[in-house]
Amino acid sequence: MSAYEIPDIVVGRLPVYLRALARMAQDGREITSSHELGERLGISSAQIRKDLSHFGEFGKQGTGYQVKFLVGQLQRILKVETEWEMALVGAGDLGHALAHYNGLVNRGFRIVAVFDNDPAKIGARLDGGLVVEDAARMKDLIRRRGVKIGMVAVPADQAQVVSDLLVEAGVRAILNYAPITISVPDEVRVQYIDPVVHLQRMTFYL
Amino acid sequence: MSAYEIPDIVVGRLPVYLRALARMAQDGREITSSHELGERLGISSAQIRKDLSHFGEFGKQGTGYQVKFLVGQLQRILKVETEWEMALVGAGDLGHALAHYNGLVNRGFRIVAVFDNDPAKIGARLDGGLVVEDAARMKDLIRRRGVKIGMVAVPADQAQVVSDLLVEAGVRAILNYAPITISVPDEVRVQYIDPVVHLQRMTFYL
Repeated sequence: MSAYEIPDIVVGRLPVYLRALARMAQDGREITSSHELGERLGISSAQIRKDLSHFGEFGKQGTGYQVKFLVGQLQRILKVETEWEMALVGAGDLGHALAHYNGLVNRGFRIVAVFDNDPAKIGARLDGGLVVEDAARMKDLIRRRGVKIGMVAVPADQAQVVSDLLVEAGVRAILNYAPITISVPDEVRVQYIDPVVHLQRMTFYL
Repeated sequence: MSAYEIPDIVVGRLPVYLRALARMAQDGREITSSHELGERLGISSAQIRKDLSHFGEFGKQGTGYQVKFLVGQLQRILKVETEWEMALVGAGDLGHALAHYNGLVNRGFRIVAVFDNDPAKIGARLDGGLVVEDAARMKDLIRRRGVKIGMVAVPADQAQVVSDLLVEAGVRAILNYAPITISVPDEVRVQYIDPVVHLQRMTFYL
């Protein structure tokens, strides 16, 4: 089935399934069920079975899912069996936290370059061993290395310019932490992380 | 109209509209249209008009929206006309970045307390002037202050325990940065920020 025939909302749930299953595998669990997974995730077991059925048959009625096998299948479907190299733009507080974030390990992603345009930050060595590069070299370095994913952690008024440069350099997926909607060509994916958007989505109900 | 009659997906778009409109207001713009807003956000103008129509009549055919007025209305709808006090749990790299994040200002939120259980971190003064408090005092301090929103920035294996404590202390909305699904009572809202979930949602299409 082509990627574009799968509803995006289903695709959005797969990483959550993978996260829970990977945790079960880490805890030594060998078998689980859509029921147990649903309980953990607050999602109905029927929904989980339906979501997974878009991609094949992964379990048998009555015997459940092999945890390790399903982890492998989801990694394949989400294309995270190997590590994607990522470029991070912005070496402020957030950039530092992202560069040090150990939650990427074994989940398919690794930051291989960090850029900033602040002379006071360029050349600084981060804990993980990365050195902050001059943003002027961004396009060239990203293109040469063939990096396809960028993380944008710059102020809102710089996010569009930075994203344009990333796209020109060949980046095809951008995780934007700047609190502004950016415009990219159709073939480029963007996801947003803005804590306030999530917070306001909750205060509505309070 | 009751909050629960509005589709949650609509509620989820309101903060994005508010963010764009607040930026327009900041830039001195007085009037906008669903068409212009849609262009900026990559959302159809019909969708925007439909979403807003759940809450009333905010513009007139042909004359568009008064930016400042619509900002005020969305702030009222999302209950962010005044500032919500928040408690942050976890004073690691991410906690530091959140405590220093200036993107909360004027958007309805303020971190008023930071907690950690690491003796090496307790007592540390953060840039904004907050002092890291002992997590053992969390329940008492949050309850006394009447804080209703918590941000969880602790390792995955501590997130459930911390969330339970927050809920016992009276917190009704949790923004969880730990890469794990947590379980809370029905009356408590949770939103998740896990960069890997967003990244994997994009690699699926690459």
